[in-house]
Amino acid sequence: MKENPYDTEDLIAALATPWAVSALAVVRTGGEGCIQALSGVFSRPEQVLKAESGTMVYGYLRDRSGRQVDQVILGVFRAGHGYTGQESIEIYCHGSLPGIQRILELLRAEGFRDAAPGEFTLRAFMNGKMDLTRAEAVQEIVTAKTRRAQSLALNRLSGAVWEKIDAFKKQLTGILALIEVQLDYPEDELDDVPELPLGEIRKIGMGIEELLGTYRAGRLFQEGVSVALAGPTNAGKSSLFNLFLKEDRSIVSGVHGTTRDYIESWITINGIPVRLFDTAGLRRAEHPVEAEGIKRSTMVIENAALVLYIVDGTLGISDRDREIVREHADDQRYLFIWNKTDLAGFPVPDRWIPVSAETGEGFSTIEQEIGRRILGHNSGEGEVMIDSQRQQDLLLRSVRALRQAELAADDGMSFDFIAADLKEALDALGEITGEVSSADILNRIFGDFCVGK
Amino acid sequence: MKENPYDTEDLIAALATPWAVSALAVVRTGGEGCIQALSGVFSRPEQVLKAESGTMVYGYLRDRSGRQVDQVILGVFRAGHGYTGQESIEIYCHGSLPGIQRILELLRAEGFRDAAPGEFTLRAFMNGKMDLTRAEAVQEIVTAKTRRAQSLALNRLSGAVWEKIDAFKKQLTGILALIEVQLDYPEDELDDVPELPLGEIRKIGMGIEELLGTYRAGRLFQEGVSVALAGPTNAGKSSLFNLFLKEDRSIVSGVHGTTRDYIESWITINGIPVRLFDTAGLRRAEHPVEAEGIKRSTMVIENAALVLYIVDGTLGISDRDREIVREHADDQRYLFIWNKTDLAGFPVPDRWIPVSAETGEGFSTIEQEIGRRILGHNSGEGEVMIDSQRQQDLLLRSVRALRQAELAADDGMSFDFIAADLKEALDALGEITGEVSSADILNRIFGDFCVGK
Repeated sequence: MKENPYDTEDLIAALATPWAVSALAVVRTGGEGCIQALSGVFSRPEQVLKAESGTMVYGYLRDRSGRQVDQVILGVFRAGHGYTGQESIEIYCHGSLPGIQRILELLRAEGFRDAAPGEFTLRAFMNGKMDLTRAEAVQEIVTAKTRRAQSLALNRLSGAVWEKIDAFKKQLTGILALIEVQLDYPEDELDDVPELPLGEIRKIGMGIEELLGTYRAGRLFQEGVSVALAGPTNAGKSSLFNLFLKEDRSIVSGVHGTTRDYIESWITINGIPVRLFDTAGLRRAEHPVEAEGIKRSTMVIENAALVLYIVDGTLGISDRDREIVREHADDQRYLFIWNKTDLAGFPVPDRWIPVSAETGEGFSTIEQEIGRRILGHNSGEGEVMIDSQRQQDLLLRSVRALRQAELAADDGMSFDFIAADLKEALDALGEITGEVSSADILNRIFGDFCVGK
Repeated sequence: MKENPYDTEDLIAALATPWAVSALAVVRTGGEGCIQALSGVFSRPEQVLKAESGTMVYGYLRDRSGRQVDQVILGVFRAGHGYTGQESIEIYCHGSLPGIQRILELLRAEGFRDAAPGEFTLRAFMNGKMDLTRAEAVQEIVTAKTRRAQSLALNRLSGAVWEKIDAFKKQLTGILALIEVQLDYPEDELDDVPELPLGEIRKIGMGIEELLGTYRAGRLFQEGVSVALAGPTNAGKSSLFNLFLKEDRSIVSGVHGTTRDYIESWITINGIPVRLFDTAGLRRAEHPVEAEGIKRSTMVIENAALVLYIVDGTLGISDRDREIVREHADDQRYLFIWNKTDLAGFPVPDRWIPVSAETGEGFSTIEQEIGRRILGHNSGEGEVMIDSQRQQDLLLRSVRALRQAELAADDGMSFDFIAADLKEALDALGEITGEVSSADILNRIFGDFCVGK
């Protein structure tokens, strides 16, 4: 580390649970001397001072004038233990807003400063409790929108990405050692120049590329995509929207917006967080407010990753519909939905998916098709996926350096050049896990974290 | 207890922190067999099964198919320990919405049911960990709007109310014992009938009345009052509103509403939570929307506990103002504020409080006057206050029974009658602390609690 972005010696504190009335809240504290500092404002100082790591002590926080601040349980962690690997105390207190304020003020008065976002995880990293892929996974778990995303991030926290990177590093280090032995002896002193393990280098490169290939899907699972329902008025867009909501049991947020422009809701389709928009019908506006709504709907449709274009199958296709179908015939963004199959209607044309928003018939086909279109080749079945752009960039840098090494070998360049390329590939991998890192990088990684994490 | 409102044997679970993305969350579980049940879905079952009470175990929750659900710390409490006095585990997990959902589902699959509001505290009561005055204080702490309210509730949780009630009960029990000795012997067998300790009974009654007298203030501190700013347009209502917000450093919620009807914000004045309204100026409406706003403002003013009527001192009093002053001359709800004293203006009339919303001069006088008007005689200085209507009702019942006993004694009634009255007083006190309680009462008390509490 070139420079320390945060002082890891300070006593820090932060509310780690949301700022809202609830049964319980957790205030996290940490830093060398933390136990001593808190014992001074606790009703049972001896019990805290003597507490073994990983034990809980019940009592009252009191200010220096002896006034009770809250009834709490202190979770005590000695240096080397707990989340950060640093002496720390988690305060389990009542979920009372003025109570939490009083605790934070008490801590400030005792020399604790407010923790920066991600500062506890940064300390865990600095103390060797986790590498950077695990540290990034911590925030990915917290912000995951679906179970699948949470599960993938949890996998990264368990070290799934780290293990892969570590294996690549070990292989590369082995090859480098082999080459460097040669470099120690001038070529003319050796009986014969040994072969470069080119096949092995290529295999490492392929492994890295495979991991790189998971980025798009990993990102999709973490960030989600926008899907818009479009089509003429009364085609059944709202019914289909409601059907999506009904079928999804993991809706995180409510429905937002007005029917005059568009309404939206986060839903889950095949584990992918989908921001589903029900747009205003594409019709001639009769009122300025409506015109504005249609304008906004058009923007939503243009920006969506996927557009479900819905028509009423009992009415068939209008000239306007035909125009849109022609325009987007080869557009992978468009899915054409033939609704109201429960009623007598026109035969379903080629490439249209029949559905009844009323009975739900055909719905699973739509879901499957959405999953297929969004994920593409990558089925998202794998358990190890990356979703950090930083990791992607570094994997790319690493794989490019490996290709460079292969090219240098093909061109018969000297081992010095090849070794330099391999070292560059190794460095990039080292940056992913955090063996090589700068204050700047750490600030960027941890700055996006929740406070208290 | 006549009937058990909740089954205290069930395994129960609830999210005890708010449902929002954050660093940490806490899922509370409890019930006989809870440790055994959780060990079956934990990565280190032996450590949990062997864990001593009050210790924390790090590991992964896993479903029965071995799939990781979250990385957690389990806080283990054996029967007799912890909040409920019942075997329980607190799960400290990531503040991830899908992660929390997965944990709750895992628990349901393992036989835990969702805890009812206040069910953990109910169990604490049932297990003798706390009496009803303390149990009620738990929720009062959580919902306290100001530090003062939180502090008063914390005091009740520490047993301040219980101690007072207990002292009354002990004194009454002593007197009753004395009387009952007499009842065991027919009057004619005794040499002379002993005197009733009437003075002592009266003293207990006075003590209970004193506690009863804290109810209004206790309620005020917990629930808060509405204060409305009224007066002609441009009198400086909004400036004064902003000054209140600026001076208060413990504002819990933001500002709501539109200037066309009224805006409001919770602030703290002398520790009292005040819902402050800035109403639309009282003027002739020029637009229907404005007329509606003025109508709503009028309702806010009528319902407020206190109205600050503000005029611009540089313009003096209009006919309309004069009319209002006359109408509310003896109205303790009205405070008349003479604003803009920083500018040259008319002399301040009698009974008007001079202030400059611009410089803040005179503001503390307004605050003091508000505190005085709201609290009345009760300064709110005491540390033991009740704020539960249930407790008030029972204290009233008790004090009435004591008066009845005094009257009976004055009338020369036999000891049987007096003893019955004293028992009635004692019973009412017993209900306050929960020695006597019915399923119905418990349901009413705990039904208003937070889930997870």
